[in-house]
Amino acid sequence: MDHPVIYQTLNVKLFIVLIISININSHVIYYNQKDIAQLPSRFRANMINSLTGYKSCNLIATKGIDGTSNLAVFSSVMHLGSSPALLGFILRPLTVRRDTYRHLKEHPFLTVNSVTTELFKKAHQTSAKYDKGDSEFNKVGVTEEYMGLFPTPYVKESPVKIGCRYVNEYEIKENDCRLVVAAIEEVYFEAEMIETDGFLRLERADTVAAMGMDGYALPAFLDRLAYAQPDAPTRSL
Amino acid sequence: MDHPVIYQTLNVKLFIVLIISININSHVIYYNQKDIAQLPSRFRANMINSLTGYKSCNLIATKGIDGTSNLAVFSSVMHLGSSPALLGFILRPLTVRRDTYRHLKEHPFLTVNSVTTELFKKAHQTSAKYDKGDSEFNKVGVTEEYMGLFPTPYVKESPVKIGCRYVNEYEIKENDCRLVVAAIEEVYFEAEMIETDGFLRLERADTVAAMGMDGYALPAFLDRLAYAQPDAPTRSL
Repeated sequence: MDHPVIYQTLNVKLFIVLIISININSHVIYYNQKDIAQLPSRFRANMINSLTGYKSCNLIATKGIDGTSNLAVFSSVMHLGSSPALLGFILRPLTVRRDTYRHLKEHPFLTVNSVTTELFKKAHQTSAKYDKGDSEFNKVGVTEEYMGLFPTPYVKESPVKIGCRYVNEYEIKENDCRLVVAAIEEVYFEAEMIETDGFLRLERADTVAAMGMDGYALPAFLDRLAYAQPDAPTRSL
Repeated sequence: MDHPVIYQTLNVKLFIVLIISININSHVIYYNQKDIAQLPSRFRANMINSLTGYKSCNLIATKGIDGTSNLAVFSSVMHLGSSPALLGFILRPLTVRRDTYRHLKEHPFLTVNSVTTELFKKAHQTSAKYDKGDSEFNKVGVTEEYMGLFPTPYVKESPVKIGCRYVNEYEIKENDCRLVVAAIEEVYFEAEMIETDGFLRLERADTVAAMGMDGYALPAFLDRLAYAQPDAPTRSL
């Protein structure tokens, strides 16, 4: 009467083969809310910061009433509206010194400057904790440039430069971050970037994108798609 | 007495040469706030939408109480915090039907699904004005996938899937947009994307970035940089 034993062994083997084949075919990692909360904090920060995809990469310059300029890299600058022309960015909780925020309270003019392949290492270096009186322009080696009558300097090396005025802020009570809203007062960009309908080809100026907390990527243009219509095929512009 | 006439001609010529050389050397386009306000609205929208740089590209799925699912492409999904894990996105003014917003008021679960080179044309097509009862999953041809007990479907084809619960919204009074805040309840991603410290290599899954109102780009990984220290050289991780 050996048959039952043979069947049992066969079942165990089939079960093992099944598990291995599921792992080979899926290769998917899953975390629920409890798993995420229990991850080591640096791992969690890297992972959660990566999930939503690529981010903009810009240097924000501000100037205090003592005349010191500040330059800081941001991956949270976002388009908010074109009429009126508004942008926003996220400021983390004010538990440590935030020169950008303090400056904006003293002098509400900021410049938003695009980051290129030539600039991203210097841009990253602005996140070091320099002394309050130090200007990151000098420390990281980018050129302060005053343009026209605008009272806050631009980054000379940036192909897109946006001069803004602080307008408002919204405290996000879930984590004490702030959404800062700024009005676009003037803009400079390289002429070769613009298409006849106003679209800017960011890749023509080697503009980079940010990834996660500390990653940088160089996008290549894929396509522009025409205004979508129900039941009509998607087509390129 | 011909001299005055000669000088005048010379001045005009010098002036023309000067203008041409400025144009050749600078190649920079400038708009002030008044210029921007006076631009044709489509040109202005294209340009202002492009200024801040690359954006994330995600499909947000929601489900109404009648059981209809909705799928819409968003370029405004942003990281808001990792502890607690939060993301946000911008909703435009509620002057037209916004199925995503209406669904979230009825049933506060949304999924955020990454867009790849394979998906971006279908993702773009979700922006067509389909009838209220139509599901964009069916209309554009992406696969609705229910995972575990999560009540809102995911996009099967997306390599990164985030299950979220609506938490709050902040009305941006400057232009009647809303920042919606959502808590990350679970996440799925392809195992090959993650590095040992939690960073996701988005480019390994062909994740795209959005440009302006209707552009798409494929980023290539450049580098990760170590935590910046004052007066220490910037270095790769």
